Amino acid sequence: MYMTSTERMKDKIETFSGFGDTGHGGITRFSLSPEALAARKEWVRRCEALGMKVFSDDMANLYAVLEGSDPSLPAIYSGSHCDSVRQGGNYDGILGVLSALEVAETIVRENIPHKHNYVCMIWTNEEGADYEPAMMSSGVVCHKFDKDKMLASVSHSTGRTFGEALAESGYVGSEANRIGSDKCAALLELHIEQGPVLEAEKKDIGVVEGVCGMINYEFTFVGQADHAGTTPMKYRKDALYAACKVIQYLHDEFDKLDKKLVYTTGKISCHPNIHTIIPDLVKFTLDARHQDPAVVQQCIDIIKKIPSEVEKCAFSYEEAWSRATVAFHKPYVDFVEESAKELGYPSMRMYSGPGHDAQFAADIVPTTMIFVPSDGGHSHCELEHTPVENCKKGADVLLNTVLKIDAAI
Amino acid sequence: MYMTSTERMKDKIETFSGFGDTGHGGITRFSLSPEALAARKEWVRRCEALGMKVFSDDMANLYAVLEGSDPSLPAIYSGSHCDSVRQGGNYDGILGVLSALEVAETIVRENIPHKHNYVCMIWTNEEGADYEPAMMSSGVVCHKFDKDKMLASVSHSTGRTFGEALAESGYVGSEANRIGSDKCAALLELHIEQGPVLEAEKKDIGVVEGVCGMINYEFTFVGQADHAGTTPMKYRKDALYAACKVIQYLHDEFDKLDKKLVYTTGKISCHPNIHTIIPDLVKFTLDARHQDPAVVQQCIDIIKKIPSEVEKCAFSYEEAWSRATVAFHKPYVDFVEESAKELGYPSMRMYSGPGHDAQFAADIVPTTMIFVPSDGGHSHCELEHTPVENCKKGADVLLNTVLKIDAAI
Repeated sequence: MYMTSTERMKDKIETFSGFGDTGHGGITRFSLSPEALAARKEWVRRCEALGMKVFSDDMANLYAVLEGSDPSLPAIYSGSHCDSVRQGGNYDGILGVLSALEVAETIVRENIPHKHNYVCMIWTNEEGADYEPAMMSSGVVCHKFDKDKMLASVSHSTGRTFGEALAESGYVGSEANRIGSDKCAALLELHIEQGPVLEAEKKDIGVVEGVCGMINYEFTFVGQADHAGTTPMKYRKDALYAACKVIQYLHDEFDKLDKKLVYTTGKISCHPNIHTIIPDLVKFTLDARHQDPAVVQQCIDIIKKIPSEVEKCAFSYEEAWSRATVAFHKPYVDFVEESAKELGYPSMRMYSGPGHDAQFAADIVPTTMIFVPSDGGHSHCELEHTPVENCKKGADVLLNTVLKIDAAI
Repeated sequence: MYMTSTERMKDKIETFSGFGDTGHGGITRFSLSPEALAARKEWVRRCEALGMKVFSDDMANLYAVLEGSDPSLPAIYSGSHCDSVRQGGNYDGILGVLSALEVAETIVRENIPHKHNYVCMIWTNEEGADYEPAMMSSGVVCHKFDKDKMLASVSHSTGRTFGEALAESGYVGSEANRIGSDKCAALLELHIEQGPVLEAEKKDIGVVEGVCGMINYEFTFVGQADHAGTTPMKYRKDALYAACKVIQYLHDEFDKLDKKLVYTTGKISCHPNIHTIIPDLVKFTLDARHQDPAVVQQCIDIIKKIPSEVEKCAFSYEEAWSRATVAFHKPYVDFVEESAKELGYPSMRMYSGPGHDAQFAADIVPTTMIFVPSDGGHSHCELEHTPVENCKKGADVLLNTVLKIDAAI
């Protein structure tokens, strides 16, 4: 078995944690910000030092090619994103970029033979923290988003459009350079789990079978605002109480479904929100995710059964958005599992709850993902952490999966 | 039976609705604002035109004396406040002021004999909408609030202190003029119900026995913020779900208590309040009111039974404030009921949910209140309305109650 280097992974993680360092254990590194451009520059420097040829596409997605013995074959790609949310951590996205780079470095240093070109990647603007939406550039490349609309997206921090920032970045290349089915045989993305399951189950590697389908609904309850001190209970139309009833109903019914279902009522608003007035307008959100579209449909069926009047309040709901389940390329999923097994790293199969660039890419190229544990399940915060030994194990699995694909196709 | 005049009540209500008119059916007339001072000026003009002597105390509470046949007797007082909340209605407070004035006008015009002096009143700053707290001046006069602290209260709208506004108002009189047990045999306050009960029960008059005791609690739930898409249900500590459980528990248990109990969870906050994050901090308020202290105690006992951990979230609560039940002077309550009966106006006994200046005054002088219906139960809003015919019925009951007291003591 070929192995990557813990020391080199440590150096990479420490170096890149410096770009946008908040001083409190995390980073703020919005896409195309000076900090993100500095990280790209260092990545390009390291890729070129390994003899890789670097180029970009029209969305400034970066590609660094390590030539194989038969460059005419479609390439094996691996990478992730280097941008972060505000006060995010040192692992989300960037760990996939650095693992892919460490795989290239291992191949070069140990002179590991491979037929296919191996391409390291950085996707532009995965988080969408400054320029919305998230997964912007993979969305354009994979025909999910309209490019002109994306270029017009305005920065929350600078007021510039994404198109202006892109032009100024110096990283705009040709549309012909985009990843695509003609030139790509595989795309692998390593990522932190962003959840507590691997840690709780004492596994080093998550073999990601796909990305959960999800629904996001907004529920609205309209009651009657009245004086808390003068209105007998029997005359009341309390929108907050009606909302509580429905939250309980969702728990009661959803808990009967498959145990892998996750659902969250994360956001609530209450009007007029005064302690002496009965609430007349309450809204809350529901986010529900499961890998099996049939279970997501069961959730929708349960929602549809809620009557239009709850505790004398008018009830309505609307779908804010939804996402169909994405299944990754089964042969590559199996290669990830076999690699972990052969390396002696405990692994488990799982679906991703969050979205990733790989979920869009799966539409156009054979794709899969590798997860490593997140301490305490924390992510999108400065507490985000994965021990370097575990980052290295993830890179080992990535390396051996690349080699298995190289041998198999 | 002596009767007040619908026409004169109509004129009074219409005239005073002009002071602070919002143009949308209501008024904004903060205490000591130019609009409130204009209302006071018109009130003084009308009182003096009836031959009443007007003076004020050190909190600018106004008194207008209609001399009785034996001015050495302690007087019968009646009045309310002329300030409003922002975009309040044309009845809350001012109707009690105008009814008391209409009673004086009826006594004068019809030359009704009375032994005791009859004193019309305006309390300063009942709403506390601009200078907090509510019931400020009755609180000072009745030894509930420290005067110096009240004078230091800062206006939300102008930044002036209440003391500055008071001095500039031109209405500051002697502390010796304050209402007190030595000079006052009775205080009567007519007010709109601010609730739907009289209307629903088809009663013209509320015979107010007292003011409900109340408690106000804040409940806090501390959970764990985690990613909505990655955290299995079994690992979650969802503070909003825990809060819903307790709201349901309060409903289940409180609904077993006396039907006159009213309770409200009117205000809720949720952190971080993002649809993709499990809430880690939720707070809500509970307001509970009942005339019987034993029922209020039952509420407290129910609250105390909530465990310190609910749905794996830490639960705590604290009392924000509370108010003991106030009982009005029983002989005068009976006089109100008798007057309504003799006038042929359907009435019912009830407790006030909201607070009034009369509840503080009840500590120092024999006090009671008369309620008239609020259309739709609306108050503290521009929809606030009571038909003038019903306002006149309230004034009739007030007049005849004054005369019953005059005869009885």
